[in-house]
Amino acid sequence: MRIRNIKNATELINDSQYVIKNPFDYKGKWQQVFGNNNPIHLEIGMGKGNFIMDMAKNNKDINFIGLEKYSAIVAKACNKLVDENIPNLRIINIDALNLKDIFDKEIDTIYLNFSDPWPKKRTIKRRLTSEIFLNIYTEIFKGTNIIKMKTDNVNLFEYSIVSLTNFGYKIDDISLDLWNTDKVYSETEYENKFRTKGVKINYLYATKEFKNND
Amino acid sequence: MRIRNIKNATELINDSQYVIKNPFDYKGKWQQVFGNNNPIHLEIGMGKGNFIMDMAKNNKDINFIGLEKYSAIVAKACNKLVDENIPNLRIINIDALNLKDIFDKEIDTIYLNFSDPWPKKRTIKRRLTSEIFLNIYTEIFKGTNIIKMKTDNVNLFEYSIVSLTNFGYKIDDISLDLWNTDKVYSETEYENKFRTKGVKINYLYATKEFKNND
Repeated sequence: MRIRNIKNATELINDSQYVIKNPFDYKGKWQQVFGNNNPIHLEIGMGKGNFIMDMAKNNKDINFIGLEKYSAIVAKACNKLVDENIPNLRIINIDALNLKDIFDKEIDTIYLNFSDPWPKKRTIKRRLTSEIFLNIYTEIFKGTNIIKMKTDNVNLFEYSIVSLTNFGYKIDDISLDLWNTDKVYSETEYENKFRTKGVKINYLYATKEFKNND
Repeated sequence: MRIRNIKNATELINDSQYVIKNPFDYKGKWQQVFGNNNPIHLEIGMGKGNFIMDMAKNNKDINFIGLEKYSAIVAKACNKLVDENIPNLRIINIDALNLKDIFDKEIDTIYLNFSDPWPKKRTIKRRLTSEIFLNIYTEIFKGTNIIKMKTDNVNLFEYSIVSLTNFGYKIDDISLDLWNTDKVYSETEYENKFRTKGVKINYLYATKEFKNND
């Protein structure tokens, strides 16, 4: 994503009730943050937040956390949220490599939407479905590992199917043209652009059973 | 496949050195048929045989068996083979449901090329990647189960990924546009038609480790 600076980014983030400023302090205590025992769903790379805001509004019995690495983008999400009231939504402004230090087996579902494809061979390990990240996710999932992924990028999609199934995930649902099915769910900024241009969206739902001896 | 009758079909099949007339007699004895210990690869639904003939000619240290249910089609393949000399090729004219009675853990790789998609819900179990068939294949694979699949049919491809990974297969390689990669291998009759029309070919290579306690 090309990042344009936004005026008052720091102020917007600091003033936002949605952004958890010290997420490392809440490891193992995220139920307290939300004040309930509802499941917690995490979007890694939430961008400007359209997807996770829509999901949170439409699923009030689920808590949603949007992770975004770039503060300039987090600020844009905060700007959108100024007049919203979404109690089951929080935002964390960190790098996904730190997830193990933020959550302790507290996440029910991870969403990966239009993740950076990192097309060059030497950057493959930065893909959010690389073994490095799948190992990190294992640490933060509460029970059955559940990943829901959408992407327009065919190479990333092919790579993810191989990486996930070699890590022990099975693919429980898949579509090579999501918008041509009845499986459509909340849309991201990218997705809206792609769909209106007629680009096909690839979708998968992968699960891995939780094992105590993992 | 629309089947046109061919004159002298029975004669062509009976006279062909490639067609094993009594395949049930060779269960556990296929090495004797070929007179060597080379691996045996099986194509289920070989059609007119372009793919398996090409594979056999180009991989002389592998034995190939083409299975085809319809004798009118087998006859067409026999017709093509009249002037060929391919010692590492055999044909069996049976229904794939009978595979367990033909082979006893003797197959190394199964090819499924442009299999009938059986699109209607009530016929899903006839798809060659349904659980019914995956169970049959387990009985005939020698070691690691290996399935290589090509199809233009997106629904069949999506279904197969779900069915295979839920059966314990992992996807080791996949392409949503085979002819746009360097993974191209022998072409079937259908594939040639589709490719020249610009239809994308989906490809996957799935494996399941052999376990003694299966």
